[in-house]
Amino acid sequence: MPRPDGRTPNQLRPVRITRNWLRHAEGSALIEFGETRVLCAATVEEGVPRWRRGTGEGWVTAEYAMLPRATDTRGTRESVKGKIGGRTHEISRLVGRSLRAVIDFRAMGEHTITLDCDVLQADGGTRTAAITGAYVALVDAVKHLRRQRNLKNNPLTGSVAAVSVGIIQGQPRLDLNYLEDSVAQTDMNVVVTGAGEFIEVQGTAESAPFDRKLLDSLLDLAVAGCAELTEIQKKALAD
Amino acid sequence: MPRPDGRTPNQLRPVRITRNWLRHAEGSALIEFGETRVLCAATVEEGVPRWRRGTGEGWVTAEYAMLPRATDTRGTRESVKGKIGGRTHEISRLVGRSLRAVIDFRAMGEHTITLDCDVLQADGGTRTAAITGAYVALVDAVKHLRRQRNLKNNPLTGSVAAVSVGIIQGQPRLDLNYLEDSVAQTDMNVVVTGAGEFIEVQGTAESAPFDRKLLDSLLDLAVAGCAELTEIQKKALAD
Amino acid sequence: MPRPDGRTPNQLRPVRITRNWLRHAEGSALIEFGETRVLCAATVEEGVPRWRRGTGEGWVTAEYAMLPRATDTRGTRESVKGKIGGRTHEISRLVGRSLRAVIDFRAMGEHTITLDCDVLQADGGTRTAAITGAYVALVDAVKHLRRQRNLKNNPLTGSVAAVSVGIIQGQPRLDLNYLEDSVAQTDMNVVVTGAGEFIEVQGTAESAPFDRKLLDSLLDLAVAGCAELTEIQKKALAD
Amino acid sequence: MPRPDGRTPNQLRPVRITRNWLRHAEGSALIEFGETRVLCAATVEEGVPRWRRGTGEGWVTAEYAMLPRATDTRGTRESVKGKIGGRTHEISRLVGRSLRAVIDFRAMGEHTITLDCDVLQADGGTRTAAITGAYVALVDAVKHLRRQRNLKNNPLTGSVAAVSVGIIQGQPRLDLNYLEDSVAQTDMNVVVTGAGEFIEVQGTAESAPFDRKLLDSLLDLAVAGCAELTEIQKKALAD
Amino acid sequence: MPRPDGRTPNQLRPVRITRNWLRHAEGSALIEFGETRVLCAATVEEGVPRWRRGTGEGWVTAEYAMLPRATDTRGTRESVKGKIGGRTHEISRLVGRSLRAVIDFRAMGEHTITLDCDVLQADGGTRTAAITGAYVALVDAVKHLRRQRNLKNNPLTGSVAAVSVGIIQGQPRLDLNYLEDSVAQTDMNVVVTGAGEFIEVQGTAESAPFDRKLLDSLLDLAVAGCAELTEIQKKALAD
Amino acid sequence: MPRPDGRTPNQLRPVRITRNWLRHAEGSALIEFGETRVLCAATVEEGVPRWRRGTGEGWVTAEYAMLPRATDTRGTRESVKGKIGGRTHEISRLVGRSLRAVIDFRAMGEHTITLDCDVLQADGGTRTAAITGAYVALVDAVKHLRRQRNLKNNPLTGSVAAVSVGIIQGQPRLDLNYLEDSVAQTDMNVVVTGAGEFIEVQGTAESAPFDRKLLDSLLDLAVAGCAELTEIQKKALAD
Repeated sequence: MPRPDGRTPNQLRPVRITRNWLRHAEGSALIEFGETRVLCAATVEEGVPRWRRGTGEGWVTAEYAMLPRATDTRGTRESVKGKIGGRTHEISRLVGRSLRAVIDFRAMGEHTITLDCDVLQADGGTRTAAITGAYVALVDAVKHLRRQRNLKNNPLTGSVAAVSVGIIQGQPRLDLNYLEDSVAQTDMNVVVTGAGEFIEVQGTAESAPFDRKLLDSLLDLAVAGCAELTEIQKKALAD
Repeated sequence: MPRPDGRTPNQLRPVRITRNWLRHAEGSALIEFGETRVLCAATVEEGVPRWRRGTGEGWVTAEYAMLPRATDTRGTRESVKGKIGGRTHEISRLVGRSLRAVIDFRAMGEHTITLDCDVLQADGGTRTAAITGAYVALVDAVKHLRRQRNLKNNPLTGSVAAVSVGIIQGQPRLDLNYLEDSVAQTDMNVVVTGAGEFIEVQGTAESAPFDRKLLDSLLDLAVAGCAELTEIQKKALAD
Repeated sequence: MPRPDGRTPNQLRPVRITRNWLRHAEGSALIEFGETRVLCAATVEEGVPRWRRGTGEGWVTAEYAMLPRATDTRGTRESVKGKIGGRTHEISRLVGRSLRAVIDFRAMGEHTITLDCDVLQADGGTRTAAITGAYVALVDAVKHLRRQRNLKNNPLTGSVAAVSVGIIQGQPRLDLNYLEDSVAQTDMNVVVTGAGEFIEVQGTAESAPFDRKLLDSLLDLAVAGCAELTEIQKKALAD
Repeated sequence: MPRPDGRTPNQLRPVRITRNWLRHAEGSALIEFGETRVLCAATVEEGVPRWRRGTGEGWVTAEYAMLPRATDTRGTRESVKGKIGGRTHEISRLVGRSLRAVIDFRAMGEHTITLDCDVLQADGGTRTAAITGAYVALVDAVKHLRRQRNLKNNPLTGSVAAVSVGIIQGQPRLDLNYLEDSVAQTDMNVVVTGAGEFIEVQGTAESAPFDRKLLDSLLDLAVAGCAELTEIQKKALAD
Repeated sequence: MPRPDGRTPNQLRPVRITRNWLRHAEGSALIEFGETRVLCAATVEEGVPRWRRGTGEGWVTAEYAMLPRATDTRGTRESVKGKIGGRTHEISRLVGRSLRAVIDFRAMGEHTITLDCDVLQADGGTRTAAITGAYVALVDAVKHLRRQRNLKNNPLTGSVAAVSVGIIQGQPRLDLNYLEDSVAQTDMNVVVTGAGEFIEVQGTAESAPFDRKLLDSLLDLAVAGCAELTEIQKKALAD
Repeated sequence: MPRPDGRTPNQLRPVRITRNWLRHAEGSALIEFGETRVLCAATVEEGVPRWRRGTGEGWVTAEYAMLPRATDTRGTRESVKGKIGGRTHEISRLVGRSLRAVIDFRAMGEHTITLDCDVLQADGGTRTAAITGAYVALVDAVKHLRRQRNLKNNPLTGSVAAVSVGIIQGQPRLDLNYLEDSVAQTDMNVVVTGAGEFIEVQGTAESAPFDRKLLDSLLDLAVAGCAELTEIQKKALAD
């Protein structure tokens, strides 16, 4: 099975980042991985959650969600159901953890930055696009915070990007789209810093367990893909 | 108080409609009234709600929502709160009623079209932008349904557009932005067919009751504004 | 189609207001528009919602609900469903807005008056009966507040009454009962002050769009009906 | 401490039953125990809950609730909270069990009767008033069902009434009002058939455990009180 | 029908109490009434609910729940349903009231003790086992509180135990298991102090009303059973 | 920092599996990893979720939860909150996926097995203990299903065990307890088949990103630990 869009196994989809897509947010980015489009908005607020008050440290958190018609079949809104599903919870937590890994909370002071990642259109890789785009929004929000509060030290300690990799008919592939994702034997999401170190590695056997060799080849692919994404982020932030 | 963006009292903001902004939906439009941006997606599904089954008639419904950072201050997600607020309910119902007014349910057969109107950025007039954009998405969804099900009669019986009008310091104005909306003495949302008849008239005294003369001047302004919007819809649908 | 209860087109149903139907509430009224019965209770409480604290201004809010067997077919309780429906939200907001239009918040000081409007029996026009009855309860609650807190200025700036009007087979009619409401082509709820000015105008095309002439005739009918209701309120309050 | 309303220890408050207070319900009664007022509505519906289908047997259930301003201090609506409180649940279950004790489910066929007991005003003893009033509504609903479905056997196997009793400063008293209820050492609700047998006995030590002798005196008082209530029910049903 | 496990009518099932089954809780007990197993954990926390603050008095409350597979058929988790059922609410309230009857709140100071009673396996009598086991956990929690806060007076004013009794084919029986419970004509739960006085008496006619004589025989049986349970509690607490 | 319980870095805590701890469940195990205790119950039910009906394939799912006082500080019940938290959702999904990896759905026929994993006491590693114990319960449930439905092929295609590993002060350690978990720089949960292949790898940088070498050493440790757990499972299942 060749790749549906003709890519080589280690090739990303076209990635576009439109910085400051929103007017009100302190930082924002519309990120596209091919047909996947995620709108990332960063909000800076004074204060931190109750359990953190008085520590002098800030907090970064994220909320991921999907518009009902982001996908091929319309999904019921979670607000209508009255509860948030497990997948949404899981991804929101992953995005939050990934961004917190490059933050010095002490340098932030008691402020909270919330990253809203709303999937406008889904074609695979929405959580990794969300992390990659949210980082761009975070950078602008941190700048805003530093300027506004006159912070001495930079709360940002590095950059972060993420990509999905998977095995299709025994072949490791980078940045699966929905079609590939739904037939992959193994599926892995990898979050990597700009320095090439791991923040999160989540590999799941979908139809068959995987061995160490396959795991290693997937990690290689992901690290290379994240290095490319890091460059794309840098360009977007340089404008 | 002159208009913040220099418009004349009876001038619309720049209105842009990007048709088919989404790939999966049977009809879609990103509509912009100045800085207000609403993504409208129409979904065609087989079957109708339980209370309508066996009637041979179709159904059209709508769900309106706002992204948390569409506004100047971040709002808590309704999915996180676990319940839908009164304003959201009220607007969803208004959008649904407005579109049903130009639908022949019998011609649809037992299908449901759902209009999702998600406000990506808010600057006043989100409900009227939602109705105006949702109509464009609806037209494409109805076309899709007719083609796919080989429907004999056209379920669409007319077109619909909506605009807000209000009174600022005694002066009637068309298409208020957020700044104007928040100081208006009276606020009215008017939904009008392409033929210039009323589907919905909702006028509310914000700080002082209004008399018949002011009501009449607001209705005149709104009817003229909707006629302009009808032309813009036609252009978008002609492409 | 003649009116089911033999009324002329511009005739109200028999309206009865039993003031102080409840013992605990600071103001209360059982209002009947024919077979429609709504129990309105006004509660005075110290303090205002969080977003209004420290402004020195009061607040007035309303909650509308229906007993499960108020209607011909039993409805599931919203407490059992765990969520409030869109119709309930919409009407609660309408009742609250209507009463706030005749209140001077500054004169109230930081107190909240809550109007509970519970429909014990429904036969059309429950929201307009709720507004008309809630005003009577509000007057007594405001008196209680003035006396108790020794307020200098009267928080009440006027009176308010509401009525529904609609078009049946081309004929404008006042104060529709359920049977008429369910066949009306156009349905309008109008909230008017004792001075004859508009607080809220909500007209909806049910089966066909309506033109300016019909709209005008409905407004005429509603204004006259509200003037009658204002007299009935005065009598109830004079006892 | 004498009784606040001058009654003797074994005297009921004035009890009034207004049968058919509602127009739509198949049976209804507004019952008053002094200042306590409960509106009881019985609804007959075809079918039974899922777990009972196919058994050929009917079902009787009850829902108890309180209007927000039934009490001295306004309570938050359970629909607004989004959940039903423990007290409401407990009383709804008690009312349902009590009425089911005088029903022959087989004679009902697969129909459900729901008793809605809504407290319009509370002054102690709302649950026992609800049971006593719901029985009257049930009788009319059963008659309706028999007539409409031409049932051979009478589903009603007896009558049921309920009263509260309590101990105040060592003295057993019948039918406590709110003031007495709040200072009682022991509080007991007793549900008795027209034949004088027990359906439910619920005694609770409020401030001190009670012994067998006190328990016996409370039961004597309750049985006598329920016999009086049975007569009042008979009169209401004879009209 | 002889007893399924060969007991005499007035014989308890084997009762075992494993004190301090949990490591973190301030008091805990795994209690078994035959195959019924309830894990009781007592938590001591500083502060009291809002409505009790500033009174100088403590509070004791309880939460009862069942694991999904405690029963023969798996039940849906209440956390998944998003709401607590009526039976759970009713039993939680009963357990809390029963334990509060032997507490001197003033001696506790403003602390709260919460008793969590989780049914790991159910075979009838789970609520009475919960009360009996929770008392043991409560004793240890109170000791912990006294030691830690150096309380002068003992908040415990007595002991409490509970048992179910019922009538099977006219025969009164002690401590019904699930099989017996499901066929009992009358079912009674009785909560008794160590001094033999009543805290709670809850008798329910399941299939037929019961008379005073049967009620008396059930009370006799329950009082004797609770006396035995009191001895078993004492032994567990003596270790 | 030496290990708080004196273990070597690659040593598991004492692991005990009590098979058939529950009487009603088709399979069950109380599993202990040191002080961590998880009760795992497997339920076999006819039918599959709606989206899977008619496929001829079975389904395996899991629900993880914690008793309120499993931890050092009492947590609010999710049933009381009315919603399930993100952590609970995430772990339930992990347990379900892990067990589905060793199931041949076609061999099951349209049956569902639900694994309930309730943490009675928590001291780190509750999710890996849950997976390891749930496998034992699953084996007995599958046996029950095969016997009862006379299934030709074995739905079980392998075994599964899980363990946590982490880095403390640069040292990789196996099976962290709570104290170690809360200070680990990197935390990884690894799910491995009896054949030594990966089902799930979830590594998270807690305080600092980790490099490939550390990742490799953690994987080595986890694979060896799971091999030991596989032996312990075999012994429990051999009895």
